[in-house]
Amino acid sequence: MNFIRKIVKSHSVEDAELYIELKKLLNFSPRKINKYKKAFTHRSVQMLDKKGIPINYERLEFLGDSILGSVIASYLYKKVPEGTEGYLTQMRSKIVSREHLNELGKDLNLIKFVKSNIDQANVGDNIHGNIFEALVGAIYLDKGYNFCQKFIHEKVIVPYVDIEKLEGKITSYKGLIIEWCQKQKKKYSFDTYEDSGNESIKHFSVKISIDGEQIAKGRATSKKKAEEMASKRVYYAFQNEISLN
Amino acid sequence: MNFIRKIVKSHSVEDAELYIELKKLLNFSPRKINKYKKAFTHRSVQMLDKKGIPINYERLEFLGDSILGSVIASYLYKKVPEGTEGYLTQMRSKIVSREHLNELGKDLNLIKFVKSNIDQANVGDNIHGNIFEALVGAIYLDKGYNFCQKFIHEKVIVPYVDIEKLEGKITSYKGLIIEWCQKQKKKYSFDTYEDSGNESIKHFSVKISIDGEQIAKGRATSKKKAEEMASKRVYYAFQNEISLN
Repeated sequence: MNFIRKIVKSHSVEDAELYIELKKLLNFSPRKINKYKKAFTHRSVQMLDKKGIPINYERLEFLGDSILGSVIASYLYKKVPEGTEGYLTQMRSKIVSREHLNELGKDLNLIKFVKSNIDQANVGDNIHGNIFEALVGAIYLDKGYNFCQKFIHEKVIVPYVDIEKLEGKITSYKGLIIEWCQKQKKKYSFDTYEDSGNESIKHFSVKISIDGEQIAKGRATSKKKAEEMASKRVYYAFQNEISLN
Repeated sequence: MNFIRKIVKSHSVEDAELYIELKKLLNFSPRKINKYKKAFTHRSVQMLDKKGIPINYERLEFLGDSILGSVIASYLYKKVPEGTEGYLTQMRSKIVSREHLNELGKDLNLIKFVKSNIDQANVGDNIHGNIFEALVGAIYLDKGYNFCQKFIHEKVIVPYVDIEKLEGKITSYKGLIIEWCQKQKKKYSFDTYEDSGNESIKHFSVKISIDGEQIAKGRATSKKKAEEMASKRVYYAFQNEISLN
């Protein structure tokens, strides 16, 4: 409560709300609120600063793209010691693909922060990935590289980066889990339901139980994604028992 | 002397020598010497680690390239607040161009560290840039992002990155200085001489004096580069008096 009181006292109501929403999203207290505002400002707003320089997220997108690339590079370098330079390059391209970043931005529902003079229906899919990159740029300027790394780890690597799947060794975790349960004569259940809460974008949750015991949960913007997320967690829980051959 | 004694005591003579050379190059004490050894090992050596994974600089090159890109991106973002995303992208491409990195690697004479089974005459020009990138990767793994940033600032940005020149506003600092001195009726002299010291690659030094007072020095692998470097320093010393129009 102290944090909120302090914020409300020293900022406009609008800024205070943004602060609080950002803190929930980032899992840390932002400092330079203007960097985040810029990260969520579309060029169509046609804002200028005192020097006449446009205020929008495009420069931050350039910066964030670059920071994201280096964080993913360093993650892959350490994670796959046997991967060649070509392998690492290819894996990184898959992870930071436009498609992948758009999905990420959508799942984080970043669009709700965006100021734009274009109708949301007409902004196109790429805005989701672009503002995700811009957000990374803003975090870098606000808190430095290590915070960025932590944020990317939490929001990109843990929920989305999946070496086995990117390599094509696993095409569906759900399929893998079901197949394994059937082979091992284990009872399994997927309990999937709509779970949007207060969010403007539809979300789904799933609980997976094996032999009556709940093993993992998942939540995402589609049933399939939520089920894959939870199934992947089951896979990691039983990794030593589940063989990929 | 304590540093050297400690190093010689706890390492092979060869490692101790590398340590000392690296400290001179990096301006800090390296810790994980094996990362640097890897950064200087060409694939032709065909070394393998205990797990059978090749030891050479190619993976580190991937990592370093990425870190370098993000450090330059962040430098440009802050340095040119009015630059658009397209401008920043273009400037970064110029700075991290293969040609530019090869020049850098050559000037730092990194090739003297390299272990290779190919004759130095046959390795091609790109090896200079590649091992520069691998070195950045090694520094990142050894000391983290902030050390990398500092190293890149000292070794890349300060001596090589020159926004005016990259933008084409200035094509020759030497020309600019001479023109300015003539206009201002100042006496100038360029004292240029070979100055290779103990290094295996030829180096040149230059001292520039204006009205009898030495203003700046420069040292590089060609007369032209040394003169441009020193002239640029003169330019910065008199920036407020020298107009670019």
